[in-house]
Amino acid sequence: MEHPPGGVCSKFTGLMARLKDPQQIVDALRKGDRGALARALSLVEQGGQSARDIGRLAYPHGGNAYTVGLTGAPGAGKSTLTNALIGDLRGRGETVSVLAIDPSSPFTGGAILGDRVRMQDHALDDGVFIRSMATRGHLGGLALATPQAIRVLDAAGAPWVLLETVGVGQVEVEVAGAADTTVVVVNPGWGDAVQANKAGLMEIADVFVINKADRAGVNETRRDLETMLEMTDLRPDDWRPPIIATVAARAEGVDELWEAVLRHRAYLESSGGLERRRSDRLLDELRTIVARSLERRAYELTSSDGVAELHQAVVARELDPYAAADHIIGDVA
Amino acid sequence: MEHPPGGVCSKFTGLMARLKDPQQIVDALRKGDRGALARALSLVEQGGQSARDIGRLAYPHGGNAYTVGLTGAPGAGKSTLTNALIGDLRGRGETVSVLAIDPSSPFTGGAILGDRVRMQDHALDDGVFIRSMATRGHLGGLALATPQAIRVLDAAGAPWVLLETVGVGQVEVEVAGAADTTVVVVNPGWGDAVQANKAGLMEIADVFVINKADRAGVNETRRDLETMLEMTDLRPDDWRPPIIATVAARAEGVDELWEAVLRHRAYLESSGGLERRRSDRLLDELRTIVARSLERRAYELTSSDGVAELHQAVVARELDPYAAADHIIGDVA
Repeated sequence: MEHPPGGVCSKFTGLMARLKDPQQIVDALRKGDRGALARALSLVEQGGQSARDIGRLAYPHGGNAYTVGLTGAPGAGKSTLTNALIGDLRGRGETVSVLAIDPSSPFTGGAILGDRVRMQDHALDDGVFIRSMATRGHLGGLALATPQAIRVLDAAGAPWVLLETVGVGQVEVEVAGAADTTVVVVNPGWGDAVQANKAGLMEIADVFVINKADRAGVNETRRDLETMLEMTDLRPDDWRPPIIATVAARAEGVDELWEAVLRHRAYLESSGGLERRRSDRLLDELRTIVARSLERRAYELTSSDGVAELHQAVVARELDPYAAADHIIGDVA
Repeated sequence: MEHPPGGVCSKFTGLMARLKDPQQIVDALRKGDRGALARALSLVEQGGQSARDIGRLAYPHGGNAYTVGLTGAPGAGKSTLTNALIGDLRGRGETVSVLAIDPSSPFTGGAILGDRVRMQDHALDDGVFIRSMATRGHLGGLALATPQAIRVLDAAGAPWVLLETVGVGQVEVEVAGAADTTVVVVNPGWGDAVQANKAGLMEIADVFVINKADRAGVNETRRDLETMLEMTDLRPDDWRPPIIATVAARAEGVDELWEAVLRHRAYLESSGGLERRRSDRLLDELRTIVARSLERRAYELTSSDGVAELHQAVVARELDPYAAADHIIGDVA
């Protein structure tokens, strides 16, 4: 496995951060300029034409990054675990990038948030790149911004991207589930927060972590997970998700967790599952892009002057909303 | 205010339930046939062409139903409150319909679920019609199925429709917020479950209820709500949401709650706000219908044979997903 340079410290950071042209930015980040990398991710986060340009220019240079998603209920210890994984990977001589996905964050792009302050341990390490992404309430945006951000890190030569999702809603689970290997973090006794989404979590987990395993209830939770794995058969392959106990705050079990991730990667690579997963993911992304574009078109259509008349006819009960919609759609699709 | 007959007991229920033709069904439910009404709601819940036909045929006959949404965190006591409101309205000689919206329910249409068992108090009362609706995971469907269901009840002459939403997610809040008057139910101390969506709830509330007001913390919760109402200015009008304390299990405060609903209705009717609200709601619905139709079209487009080639080009990194989407969309929009 080849590891292109991921964390080369650049003496041009100040200069490059002012770059505006997407081609220049992508050229610079490919040479290891962290300022250009940060700039590219900000543009991706903002969306619009620049985001598309960055993604398009970065795309041909990718294909080497392996993504590991971490998801679970708030308080399960995902950030602590991510922090411990960074330490483990650095100990193995690997460079590592982290994307922390926080859909509700009011902070602007690139902010290191509360829970992730401890990741500052690694802030001065050139082999580590940490970035949090928010999309300020634009939910559809997160599903589309994340693969673009990964594309940028991939083009910059990142061999490992840890994708940590904050929160346990449908969107976070979807984002984490779109990784090459998805790690679902629970605690002894699970906790209430995870109940609502248990089925969704069972479906995407390639590796289970029972974190805070110094508390009571580890064996029960393990049995609970094993029973659910036996009862449900949601996997399209015959991988059996291992269950790893960790105490992330003391880095216990973290090495074992990473070994499980590596085993899953080896399984995917030897079975052809990795190619299939990535191909399916691209088709999903393509569908989402098409749907969002048509949605935007729908909004434009229903905001035009011509629609006021139809709207009035609906208000007057001369036309029902579906008939009005047919009139509008007749013009486009 | 006119109250068309809402709860006429039909001797033809058995016969009419077998009706298949949407026009016959709508004709029958307008004559007070409860079997036809139930059949129409089942068709609406299932979606598709029959749902559209029912909605289209019912629409010209509506305009009299007033909708009251009830929303709040699980366990806040919405069902108990709804039950108590039914009693209060019956005491006022009103007929009342209840739509309980449960997006995650695995039961088929029309099931009376767990919490709502006590509503069976009213099961034999011809002046009461209770129905729960689920859309089995198809979330977009709920936002569209609910106004169609209200349209059907409206055509059947229902003067009051209570719209109870189970859960506190974005969808439930949106559905309840699309009522003429929206009642947000909290408990003393709020409870954790509501925290995530507090801003959303503040935005849609026309009336606040502090239910389970026999517990400690009512005054603090009231002050909390008042402070938030002063701090945020999300309302497009100058209605100030009243805060009503209730103990729904003993029907305490329920009469006062209904008076608050009536005051809000009078305010909306005299200020022109009701027409504006309903008109805005129809435009929203129109937009959603157009967006969903285009989404379906997007799915069809990305499932066709021609797309396989584009998908392969994306997998091979010859084309990025956005460029591929442009090719596809170029054919329609």
